[in-house]
Amino acid sequence: MSDVFQRSLDLHQHHRGKLAIASRVGLDTREDLSLAYSPGVAAPCEEIAAAPERARELTVKGNSVAVVTDGSAVLGLGNIGPEAALPVMEGKALLFKRFAGIDAWPICLDTQDEDEIVETVRRIAPGFGGVNLEDIAAPRCFAIEARLQDLGIPVFHDDQHGTAIVLLAALINAARVTGRRLEDLSVVINGAGAAGTAIARLLRCVGYGTHECVPVREVIVCDSRGAISRSRQDLSPEKAELLGYTNRNDRSGGLAEVLEGAEVFVGVSVAGALDAALVRSMAPRPLLFPMANPVPEIMPEEALAAGAAVVGTGRSDFPNQVNNVLAFPGIFRGALDAGAPRISPHMMIHAAYALARTVEEPTAERVLPDPLDPEVPRVVAAAVEAAARREFAEALR
Amino acid sequence: MSDVFQRSLDLHQHHRGKLAIASRVGLDTREDLSLAYSPGVAAPCEEIAAAPERARELTVKGNSVAVVTDGSAVLGLGNIGPEAALPVMEGKALLFKRFAGIDAWPICLDTQDEDEIVETVRRIAPGFGGVNLEDIAAPRCFAIEARLQDLGIPVFHDDQHGTAIVLLAALINAARVTGRRLEDLSVVINGAGAAGTAIARLLRCVGYGTHECVPVREVIVCDSRGAISRSRQDLSPEKAELLGYTNRNDRSGGLAEVLEGAEVFVGVSVAGALDAALVRSMAPRPLLFPMANPVPEIMPEEALAAGAAVVGTGRSDFPNQVNNVLAFPGIFRGALDAGAPRISPHMMIHAAYALARTVEEPTAERVLPDPLDPEVPRVVAAAVEAAARREFAEALR
Repeated sequence: MSDVFQRSLDLHQHHRGKLAIASRVGLDTREDLSLAYSPGVAAPCEEIAAAPERARELTVKGNSVAVVTDGSAVLGLGNIGPEAALPVMEGKALLFKRFAGIDAWPICLDTQDEDEIVETVRRIAPGFGGVNLEDIAAPRCFAIEARLQDLGIPVFHDDQHGTAIVLLAALINAARVTGRRLEDLSVVINGAGAAGTAIARLLRCVGYGTHECVPVREVIVCDSRGAISRSRQDLSPEKAELLGYTNRNDRSGGLAEVLEGAEVFVGVSVAGALDAALVRSMAPRPLLFPMANPVPEIMPEEALAAGAAVVGTGRSDFPNQVNNVLAFPGIFRGALDAGAPRISPHMMIHAAYALARTVEEPTAERVLPDPLDPEVPRVVAAAVEAAARREFAEALR
Repeated sequence: MSDVFQRSLDLHQHHRGKLAIASRVGLDTREDLSLAYSPGVAAPCEEIAAAPERARELTVKGNSVAVVTDGSAVLGLGNIGPEAALPVMEGKALLFKRFAGIDAWPICLDTQDEDEIVETVRRIAPGFGGVNLEDIAAPRCFAIEARLQDLGIPVFHDDQHGTAIVLLAALINAARVTGRRLEDLSVVINGAGAAGTAIARLLRCVGYGTHECVPVREVIVCDSRGAISRSRQDLSPEKAELLGYTNRNDRSGGLAEVLEGAEVFVGVSVAGALDAALVRSMAPRPLLFPMANPVPEIMPEEALAAGAAVVGTGRSDFPNQVNNVLAFPGIFRGALDAGAPRISPHMMIHAAYALARTVEEPTAERVLPDPLDPEVPRVVAAAVEAAARREFAEALR
């Protein structure tokens, strides 16, 4: 594992960054330049000045996404700042291109203030077709995303929704493989940050509408001090809000207490948070998603030996990798193709079910497709685009 | 001419914009992804967190420029707003790549407020190696550029300095061709916006230091109401400031009055501002740079027939095209390669003289090189980089 770090550092050093600009048009002759730039370029400018929505058809706006971070919660590295976040944002931009043909550019902000981040994204929005918020710490990530939903272009916090959507797809197939129904499942989520909170909301269909979203029976969220319950005096407003739709029997105590009898464990925490004894205390044949990176809460072999029916991690070297790249490229592709003004809960639910369906015959070792399967983003994009066209039929006409 | 507009519109429509993202690294295999993104990418992130200056070597920051506009003074089209400016900014980004291998991305701002523009550029700066301000209206462009000089990366308003540098290079060679010395020339500039003001400053060496910069004898700037003189009651603060270094004999009146006897006309105004009679009123064999686009202040054939010795326009279909692409790619290339914290007057003067020297044997029809000559940006970059290394020797050590 350590080797991958040295080789990555060498790669970055050798290429001096990963991202580059390319041209869609010829730039060789005087004639080329007169069409791509002055004087010919005045024509598309005037066209857009007269009808601003034409920018989507005549410029990079129709296919571009800003990958915006404040560098406050980068990978497992924490608050390393905007410059140090750049390698991740460049990588994310490349994934957009690789998996969905989207031209994304990193925007690393020299501020970690909620108001300033919102304001800055608003100011740079005219040149972009969408905004992917990335590696912004909770709880400010929630407010930032919520406040930008009126921007007129999709604004999506991948650490929240991307992870939640892929996890739901995995859970849909894991339930199917083990003959369960989503609505009967009791889920314990270990970790109450951006991803944990978004997973809790999606699994309980909070804000998603019940006609399409099937809520699981129960979710209990734990942070480092144990279950988030009404008896806790130390809850932030964001954590207190979780009590509106989780832990309905108000169970308190540590992870061990609330995990007893649960069918599903979702880990967005740290290595070692789960062990064989805890797995054995769960319902028979539990579904485990220990997603801590790079080392999961419990290693798959140990989890399977302790009776787990399905194990999914964040790692590519084990089966069932819960990888955001299964969702965000297709989601943005579909949203951009539809010209959707935002990525709605409706579109997210359709993304999750479409992603689940890409695995034709799920097995315990394959509740999610291969992240390199080129069909996946296409299927997700088609489902998201169709959902957007239905939802925004009026606006898009 | 009208055909170029329709063809440009078709080109933009067909390609749906001109700019695209490319990857410097392989993204085909799982292994590729583990190096370009998670988990390997943590290594360059940590490296930069420990030593922020390493971002220049490990990320796109070392080679990237933000092309920033507020859409307030786009080409000759005026205040058409940020979306409509996008085709120009994309084109500019492509010129950066084509002529200097620089990866530039357009940032079109949804604000035309000086403070907000400055603030936004500061906030997005961590991900960029430089900032090219573009098509921002005078007078706010002056203050914006000045206020951003402490950002630690080059910030350059091409409409001011790029134009001034190329014009100076042209004038150096035009003076040589006609056996004149810069210090003897009397220059009339028609147009007191960003370019006119910057040209006046450079020709009079204001802020450039006299040990390298040779000031012309006299500059008179005219706006649409005539010469900017002490008797004018209608001058903005920016125009009043011109009187500190122009029009030393305080001549007043229209363009016709002050042009009499002048050796040089510089037009950054509108078609038709100059005619044969006015040219004949100038000193014998005058040097004319009617640069209005797309139609110059006077057409070259008419100017030559009226006695002009050298005529340079903004047009590629006449000799001596005063084209910013001769300067800005090399200037940024040199600044980035030196790791310069800003583009100093010293660097600009060296750019102008290096550009003039790229024409080995100047003639009346060739005071500037061909904008497509690949040698030009290399020569300019080398001169700028060397100038920066001398000037910032301490800081760059």
